[in-house]
Amino acid sequence: MKRRAFLKAAGIAGAAAFSTPAIAQDKRELKMVTSWPRNFPGFAASAERLAQRITMATGGSLVVKVLAAEELVGRYETFDAVSSGGADIYHGIESFWQGKSKAFNFFAAVPFGLTANEMAAWIYHGGGQEVWDRLSADFGLKPFLAGNTGSQMGGWFRKEMKVVDDFDGLNIRISGLGGDVLRRIGAAPKALPGGELVAALESDAIDACEWYGPWLDLTLGLHKAAKYYYYPGFHEPGTAISAAVNRKLWEGLSGEHKAAIEAAMAAETTVTLAEFNARNTDALDVLRTKHKIGVRKFSSTILRAFGEAAGQVVTDIGTSEVSTRKVYDSFIAYRRRTVSWSKVADQGYMNARLLPFKY
Amino acid sequence: MKRRAFLKAAGIAGAAAFSTPAIAQDKRELKMVTSWPRNFPGFAASAERLAQRITMATGGSLVVKVLAAEELVGRYETFDAVSSGGADIYHGIESFWQGKSKAFNFFAAVPFGLTANEMAAWIYHGGGQEVWDRLSADFGLKPFLAGNTGSQMGGWFRKEMKVVDDFDGLNIRISGLGGDVLRRIGAAPKALPGGELVAALESDAIDACEWYGPWLDLTLGLHKAAKYYYYPGFHEPGTAISAAVNRKLWEGLSGEHKAAIEAAMAAETTVTLAEFNARNTDALDVLRTKHKIGVRKFSSTILRAFGEAAGQVVTDIGTSEVSTRKVYDSFIAYRRRTVSWSKVADQGYMNARLLPFKY
Repeated sequence: MKRRAFLKAAGIAGAAAFSTPAIAQDKRELKMVTSWPRNFPGFAASAERLAQRITMATGGSLVVKVLAAEELVGRYETFDAVSSGGADIYHGIESFWQGKSKAFNFFAAVPFGLTANEMAAWIYHGGGQEVWDRLSADFGLKPFLAGNTGSQMGGWFRKEMKVVDDFDGLNIRISGLGGDVLRRIGAAPKALPGGELVAALESDAIDACEWYGPWLDLTLGLHKAAKYYYYPGFHEPGTAISAAVNRKLWEGLSGEHKAAIEAAMAAETTVTLAEFNARNTDALDVLRTKHKIGVRKFSSTILRAFGEAAGQVVTDIGTSEVSTRKVYDSFIAYRRRTVSWSKVADQGYMNARLLPFKY
Repeated sequence: MKRRAFLKAAGIAGAAAFSTPAIAQDKRELKMVTSWPRNFPGFAASAERLAQRITMATGGSLVVKVLAAEELVGRYETFDAVSSGGADIYHGIESFWQGKSKAFNFFAAVPFGLTANEMAAWIYHGGGQEVWDRLSADFGLKPFLAGNTGSQMGGWFRKEMKVVDDFDGLNIRISGLGGDVLRRIGAAPKALPGGELVAALESDAIDACEWYGPWLDLTLGLHKAAKYYYYPGFHEPGTAISAAVNRKLWEGLSGEHKAAIEAAMAAETTVTLAEFNARNTDALDVLRTKHKIGVRKFSSTILRAFGEAAGQVVTDIGTSEVSTRKVYDSFIAYRRRTVSWSKVADQGYMNARLLPFKY
């Protein structure tokens, strides 16, 4: 409600001020509204690189200006701002728009869904882009994959999680569908911003929390407030970062500008994933060696309980509406096939690499 | 010898004909020489997309013309052609240039090395690009990551491979460092072009072969000539595809053109990997359901023997020359750290996903 009111206000104010992009000396300024505070690690930097790539590759004939969350609209208002033409491009995560359609979750992350590579394969070469285009077209948007966080972690816990019953009544900060999964096994998911997590853990307001992965978790200092760091991040096995262009604007762009934008989006998909993996690699090392954090794996019994609940959550959202059903069908069919390939490819290789031998 | 002679001839002929890119009406034509026959699945298409992305994104102010192997120079002559300015960009795999320096292997694939994602993290955010730039600068080249085949398969065998001794005297088509590894455990690696593999297997000229993965292997029809399809592809866990620009040309380009080329290269990194994963997913399904191929895993004993031999091969090439040592040190240090991260990230998640539960 509050969100809608805020947006309407922004929309009205915006109509005169910035609905038509400024055109001066063959320059066209595009406003990219993001869901990130300025300097938010990973995400804000990716949005900046994306904007610079487009600006540079078009020789400044498109100048993309990045606006942090709250600078023009709030972090969850960016979708409506671009949909209405009040801004030109948004940079965010599609699950933020699940209030519009639950189908958007499939282009971000779903519990026990696709890894970053599987998501890219589905989107670029497995029919994913087509169902995404149809979904977003209804909102006046042309969507693109523009990054991925890679696999996230399972979260920080104040106590050891030994059995499924340990989740009963557990106050845990976890967002989106991951929260729905944990609710089904008895936990009490909460929404809390990152900046409040350490204090909430220390005051016992929450017993546990998930944030992103070693890099961003270390930045928040979560290791100071909870001792048990679990993997895998079953709820977000590879969260896609996305950007969408106002569809009318997109359709009016020259082939040259379209090509530059498309290349910049796909470039950020790999460069951002690479950044998360490289920084997570470093941060995990720091957590282990400097802060003596022992990373633990959820037990198979707990993971199976997560899996059963995840199956129900994903089926429920996938079969809830006609538009969602089409996306779900494409996603699930791709997932079934690709699990077999991953098993003999990356997964089979990485498991073989753990055998003891000198290297 | 023959290669060098051929190249010299091409270089002399080329000096007048195409050492200066054609400039007409603000258009500059760039010649991209590739190591692929025209229509070679995956690789040729990626080179074409890369060329089109650059051409489109620059509004045709750079027109990249793709030349298949043998059209201007042979598939292994492209490096020297671009190095000397006889062509502008090459598109290939860095291990093809190991005759120049063994260090190039680390930017393609080494046995038990990095996966596609780990390679991208090392190159883009882990110091890999810097050591690569230094290596290639000595040859007048500016190199880029421009794709990845993803994890490959272990190969096709006419008989079941049960113990390490089964490799003794085995005639196997396998290229590069993978061949060096198998030689250390007693096999006899051979070099043979893809088109000859089915006949060579059927006539018992070879007992086994590796090619790429389900997609390209199915295209060749290898399943008709050998029954046992093994994984993992320990020798090529994620083979990088690369492109390099003549360094003098690169340094003279405008910021706009540099940005367009950089974005196009990074875009192809993710889109090509996605294509290999999507097509391998489909092809594995066809091999299993239509052709009844049962995929087998190398036993742990065999994998450990591969691992020991791979460790020796990689250490030997990594410590052979000063220039190689710098690349090796960067690669090995990154590999050690990232194995820990992958284990709790993609690998930990994918293993959890195999637990039995309804989804």
